[in-house]
Amino acid sequence: MANEIYEIPTEISEHFASGTLVAAIAQDSVTNEVLMMAWMNREALLQTIATKRGTYWSRSRGRIWVKGESSGNSQEVLAISYDCDGDAILLKVKQEGAACHTGSRSCFYREL
Amino acid sequence: MANEIYEIPTEISEHFASGTLVAAIAQDSVTNEVLMMAWMNREALLQTIATKRGTYWSRSRGRIWVKGESSGNSQEVLAISYDCDGDAILLKVKQEGAACHTGSRSCFYREL
Repeated sequence: MANEIYEIPTEISEHFASGTLVAAIAQDSVTNEVLMMAWMNREALLQTIATKRGTYWSRSRGRIWVKGESSGNSQEVLAISYDCDGDAILLKVKQEGAACHTGSRSCFYREL
Repeated sequence: MANEIYEIPTEISEHFASGTLVAAIAQDSVTNEVLMMAWMNREALLQTIATKRGTYWSRSRGRIWVKGESSGNSQEVLAISYDCDGDAILLKVKQEGAACHTGSRSCFYREL
């Protein structure tokens, strides 16, 4: 099983070990538009790596969710990078339809 | 004072009210490269709005920090948007030099 043999870098797994989620940013692989930010626990990250589908942890629902599981607007993950202190993951994705549940392409559709 | 009159949208301020930080993503305004992700509390967000300098909350140091305050690699903030559920902020920035403390332009320099 990919889930069992993949070794997550220490910088990231330290956060999971202390019960902290990491921020996962999904970015359009073609336009570089930032589409959404959601949360990952260890299981969500391993499932994303194994399936190449954007998979997150819902803080409000307390469960794993696969992007598009109800809307059909799934995310094919083409590349994954992580930041210097391991508390953020950047996904380059091919996004089917809208990334936002509001129907907007990006969740960041409002300016301050 | 700008800090006192600016009204933060409810979707965001709810997180601050419950003691939760929001994820702040800094993106190069020209290339759309994602440069870094850091955290903001209410004060950091208000200071960013007022000064147009990327300003964050350090979880490890337990204090506000202004990007570039020690390195000189400051961030001029050109636009700020926020996501549908208000737990993430997207900053379009003009980044002076490296965004990462390692000297890398972006903190996301390692792939999984």
